[in-house]
Amino acid sequence: MQNIQHIEGGVCAAKGFRAGGVWCGIKDGSHKPDLALIYSKTACVSAAVFTTNRVKAAPVIVTREHCKDGKIQAVIANSGFANACTGEPGLALARRMAFLIADEFTIPERNVAVASTGVIGVSLPIAAIEAGVSALADSTSADASGAESALTAIMTTDTRKKSDAVEINIHGRPVHIGAMVKGSGMIHPNMATMLCFITTDAAIEQPALDAALKDAIRASFNRLTIDGDTSTNDTVILMANGRAGNPTIALDGEDFALFSTALRALCISLVRQTARDGEGATKLIAVTVKGAEDEETAEALAKSVASSSLVKTAMFGADANWGRIVCALGYARVPFNPERVSVAFSSKAGNVSVCENGQGLSFSEENAKNILLEDEIEININIGGGASAVTVWGCDLSYDYVKINGDYRS
Amino acid sequence: MQNIQHIEGGVCAAKGFRAGGVWCGIKDGSHKPDLALIYSKTACVSAAVFTTNRVKAAPVIVTREHCKDGKIQAVIANSGFANACTGEPGLALARRMAFLIADEFTIPERNVAVASTGVIGVSLPIAAIEAGVSALADSTSADASGAESALTAIMTTDTRKKSDAVEINIHGRPVHIGAMVKGSGMIHPNMATMLCFITTDAAIEQPALDAALKDAIRASFNRLTIDGDTSTNDTVILMANGRAGNPTIALDGEDFALFSTALRALCISLVRQTARDGEGATKLIAVTVKGAEDEETAEALAKSVASSSLVKTAMFGADANWGRIVCALGYARVPFNPERVSVAFSSKAGNVSVCENGQGLSFSEENAKNILLEDEIEININIGGGASAVTVWGCDLSYDYVKINGDYRS
Repeated sequence: MQNIQHIEGGVCAAKGFRAGGVWCGIKDGSHKPDLALIYSKTACVSAAVFTTNRVKAAPVIVTREHCKDGKIQAVIANSGFANACTGEPGLALARRMAFLIADEFTIPERNVAVASTGVIGVSLPIAAIEAGVSALADSTSADASGAESALTAIMTTDTRKKSDAVEINIHGRPVHIGAMVKGSGMIHPNMATMLCFITTDAAIEQPALDAALKDAIRASFNRLTIDGDTSTNDTVILMANGRAGNPTIALDGEDFALFSTALRALCISLVRQTARDGEGATKLIAVTVKGAEDEETAEALAKSVASSSLVKTAMFGADANWGRIVCALGYARVPFNPERVSVAFSSKAGNVSVCENGQGLSFSEENAKNILLEDEIEININIGGGASAVTVWGCDLSYDYVKINGDYRS
Repeated sequence: MQNIQHIEGGVCAAKGFRAGGVWCGIKDGSHKPDLALIYSKTACVSAAVFTTNRVKAAPVIVTREHCKDGKIQAVIANSGFANACTGEPGLALARRMAFLIADEFTIPERNVAVASTGVIGVSLPIAAIEAGVSALADSTSADASGAESALTAIMTTDTRKKSDAVEINIHGRPVHIGAMVKGSGMIHPNMATMLCFITTDAAIEQPALDAALKDAIRASFNRLTIDGDTSTNDTVILMANGRAGNPTIALDGEDFALFSTALRALCISLVRQTARDGEGATKLIAVTVKGAEDEETAEALAKSVASSSLVKTAMFGADANWGRIVCALGYARVPFNPERVSVAFSSKAGNVSVCENGQGLSFSEENAKNILLEDEIEININIGGGASAVTVWGCDLSYDYVKINGDYRS
C-alpha cells in the first residue's frame, strides 16, 4: 500500500515505548517467560476493545473500567492462567496487578491495563507476580528485543511470534504503529483468547483513535476464525503517546484516513499471522466472498465457509471438495441464489475454477491438489449478485488441533 | 417409559412394510450395497421434514413436492452421491428414480419419496439404478433382515447400523413404529446429511402424524450436533399405513399423546445412536442445561457447549476442563448469570461436581478422569434460574474425525 512501510520493532517501533518480559514463576517449573510489560514513558490516549463473551475474565472487567477515560500508560499481562471464573478474589488479584505497576512507575493505578491468558478457573499465584515486578520493570528496553521479550511472555500454545509495525508520514513527520498479538485457539469472529497490544507515537485525539481501532478490528480480528470458540479474555489495547510530533489527528480528514488505513493494514497482517498459527494449523485459508448485496451478507457467507469443520479438514487433506463449500454457504442463514455461485481455489501454485452457476466444472484433480498443497490458500467465491466483497481468515483443521486440545491442561 | 416397549425389526417392525437393499453399481468397484427401498403394500399417510440448508439437493426438492399431499407409499434411497449442486439434470434424475419405483409397483410417481447421500456435485449414474431396480424390488422382505439390508445400503461413513422400533398399545391393538437412520458427519441442529425413514402401522390422521413428527424432531434430531455442518440432503419421512387396526388417532387426546411420546422416544434412541457414531467419535456426550427461564435459552446454551471444538477435544482427552464449558455458555448469545452456574460430569463410573456459582471446586482429577474415560458422558449444567431443562446430544472430536474428512472423496 502506498505510503505505508512495514518496519521492524513491534510494539517498540513507536517512539517512547519500552517493553519486556520475564519468568516470575506463574508457569511453575517450565521457566518459560510468563509476565510481560509494555509502557510509555509519557501519558497516552488509548482505545480498547474486549471480548463479547458473557463470561468475562477478571482482568477484562478491571481493564474495561480503567480504559473508560481513554488513558492507559502501561499494560501488564501474564500467561499460564486466565484469571477467569475466579469471582471476587480474581477481581482483587487483577486490581493488585495494576497496583503493582502503578506503584513501580508512580502512575495512577487506573492508567494501567491488565490482561491474562491461560487456563480458566484457577487462581493466579499473585506472590510470584509481586516478587517479579521489579525484575520485569528492569527487563524492559526500547528496542526490538524488548518487544520480542514481552511477546514471548504472553504466548501459550502459540508457535510463532506474531508482531508487525508500520511507518507512515504525516505532514513530514514519521509516525509509527507497532503491535504484538497472542492467540491460536479459542478464536472466532468477535474476538478470542486473543491479546493484542498496539502502540503508536502518533498525536491523535481520543475519539479518532477509538474510531480507527473499531474500524480496523471490524475488518481484521472480527473476520478471523480458528475454532469457533470465543474466549473470556480477549483484549485489544491501543496506546498513543504523541511523540511523533505530528499535527494532532482529529476524526475525519486525510490524516485520519491514512492513520486508519495503516492501522487496518497492521491488524490484517497480525490476523494473517494468527490464522497461520491456529492451533494445529498447517495452512492459512483466506475465504473471499464477492458479488454480495452488502458486506454483512458477504461476511456471513465467508465466515460460514471458513468455520466449517468439513471445509477445514478438506483443506488439511488438500482435497478440492467444493461441495462442502457450497453446503456451508447454504446454512449461513443469509439470502443468495445457489444457482449463481462460482468457486475457485488459488495459491502460489496456480488457480483452478471448480464450480460455476452452482454446478461442478470438470477440472484436473492433480492440478487442484498441487494448488491446495501450498500453505496459503485462497477460496474465492462469487455469488453473482451485488458489488460487496469481504475476506475472512482461518486455517485448516488437523490432527494436531485435536492433540493440542485433547490434552491442554496436563 | 411406561407402555412403550422397544422391539426388534426396524422399519419392518410395523405390519405391511417391506424393505431391502442391493448393490447396483453406484459405488463403483466396492460392491457395497448402494440402493435401498422401503415400501408399504397399501397406501399411507405421511409426514416429512427437510434440511434448512438454502442449497437443497435435487431429491429434497422432488420429495418435498411429492410429500405435499401427505401421501407417500415408497422410499427409494441411494448412497455414494448426494445429487446436490447438479442443477436441472439432477432434478430430472431424482424424478427418474421416483418413476422407476412407481413403474415397478404400479403406484403414482408422486407417492414415491427419493433420497440421496454421498459426495456433492457429481452426477448420479442413473443407468446403474435403472438396471438395479428390479433386483431391488425382489430383494425386499417384511422381516428384520429386509430392514437391515435397506439400512446397510444407505450408509456412507457410518460405522454402526442405527435403527430401533417400539410397540405401544392403543385400545387393545398393538401399534408399531420402526425407524432407521443414516448419518455421521455434516450433522448439526436443524438437520444434516441425515436420512431417517420411519414406518408405522398406526391408523392416524395426517395432521396428527405431522404434529407428532415435528414435535419428536424438535426434541431429538434438532438437538443433535456432530460437527456443526448442516447438509444439503437431510430428510425424515414418516409413513403410516393404518394396518394395526387401532381407532384412528386424531390430533390431541390420549392416543395422540401416547403415539407422540413413543415416536419421540424412538427418535431420541436414534439420535443417541447417531451421536455415538459421529465421524471419528469415541464417546456420546449428552449436555443437559437446567435452571433456565425457558427451553429456548436452555437449548441455546446446551448446543453451544455440545458444539464447542474445545469442549469436544477435552472430552476426547478425558480432561475435566470445565472452564471451556463455562466459556462456551458465555458466547451462546443468550442471557444467564455466570455467577450462578454449576457444572458436573457423570457417567457409569460416577459423578463429579467441578464448578459451583461460577467458580471452580476442588475435585480429584483422577476420579474425574475415570468418569470421563467412559464412552457415554453426561455434562450437567445448572444455570440457577428458572425451571426449564433441555438435553442436547453430541460427541467428542478425535483424530479420526480429521482423518475421515481430510480424505473423504478418495
